[in-house]
Amino acid sequence: MTAAKKDGSDDRYEIRLGGSGGQGIILAAVILAEAAAIHGGYQVCQSQSYGPEARGGRCKAEVVVATGEIDYPQVIMVDILLALTQEACDAYFHNFKPNGLLLADSTFVKQLPTSRVISLPFTRIAMEKTGKAMTTNMVALGAVGVVNRLITTAHLEKAIQARSPHGSAQVNLQAFRAGVKATKALDLSKLPRSVSPEEEDEV
Amino acid sequence: MTAAKKDGSDDRYEIRLGGSGGQGIILAAVILAEAAAIHGGYQVCQSQSYGPEARGGRCKAEVVVATGEIDYPQVIMVDILLALTQEACDAYFHNFKPNGLLLADSTFVKQLPTSRVISLPFTRIAMEKTGKAMTTNMVALGAVGVVNRLITTAHLEKAIQARSPHGSAQVNLQAFRAGVKATKALDLSKLPRSVSPEEEDEV
Repeated sequence: MTAAKKDGSDDRYEIRLGGSGGQGIILAAVILAEAAAIHGGYQVCQSQSYGPEARGGRCKAEVVVATGEIDYPQVIMVDILLALTQEACDAYFHNFKPNGLLLADSTFVKQLPTSRVISLPFTRIAMEKTGKAMTTNMVALGAVGVVNRLITTAHLEKAIQARSPHGSAQVNLQAFRAGVKATKALDLSKLPRSVSPEEEDEV
Repeated sequence: MTAAKKDGSDDRYEIRLGGSGGQGIILAAVILAEAAAIHGGYQVCQSQSYGPEARGGRCKAEVVVATGEIDYPQVIMVDILLALTQEACDAYFHNFKPNGLLLADSTFVKQLPTSRVISLPFTRIAMEKTGKAMTTNMVALGAVGVVNRLITTAHLEKAIQARSPHGSAQVNLQAFRAGVKATKALDLSKLPRSVSPEEEDEV
């Protein structure tokens, strides 16, 4: 994707996760936050807002990562959007950066609003690998771990071990690694670098 | 404490939870948020920020509840501060409302920065009731449930059942109810109504 973040600049890196209630969106966000902050040494704000939109069963959680202080704690422009359902994809695909990346569960998200997208059958991978649909969030977390430019998969594994409810760390790690593997098997270089014509010109 | 919220006004009600890592502060905040939003019908923002402060092992989570839209998602002035450790109490006792309320675990918080305080041995109650120190967060949540003016203990019980990691709902409810009982046994009317002399005059 973009170059690894090694230059110490302190711009924001923003991740939004969306799905339906009970899919483990908040746990995934808390794990991302802890991996970035406790293991990666970044400043992190992690939040979920519940409003009228939650009535439809949609669920959203956000993680803002920075090297410097974070003045506004919620996502301003999305670098990575995870969508586990079509409804979440429709509702949360806004403020998407021209070079942002959508990760969609191909099992449920059929209408893709951008060509900057990776579509993988997270739910099917979870079922095949662990037999538990509830590990879909961890498969998707593996994909986020591969494509994001700040949080490493090694730090994510530490956070998964610390944060998984009693007895579920091993199965969660198994699902996470299946997500990492499936994402690494993709050729991301074929994605358009940006969906904004102006940005393409600048490059 | 203050009158129950029945008038439909949409001011903010702000709860900050502090402890050390591993005490279940984030889970308690997520449960408060879901009780308020999904069961109570309020607008809610729930967040945790990780910065240099987290290095000391301190952990903070915040819940902002309102009847109208929430424009700024983090706590501005604290209505309720829960402090499970002295370090958390020292670090997070700021922007405290004159009529705010501090809930402190008397087992660990010896120096109390306000007289608007309820000091209860949350950890000891957890050990006596469930034999598990990890249910301290649920005992404290029971206290928050009694003293806050928006979120009901019935809604909190529903959220505890939905959000407790597999197999822990019953023990969590047991701890929660012990916290409710211990707090209801206190005579809160003896607390000063406000720590601000000006506010006392206004009343």
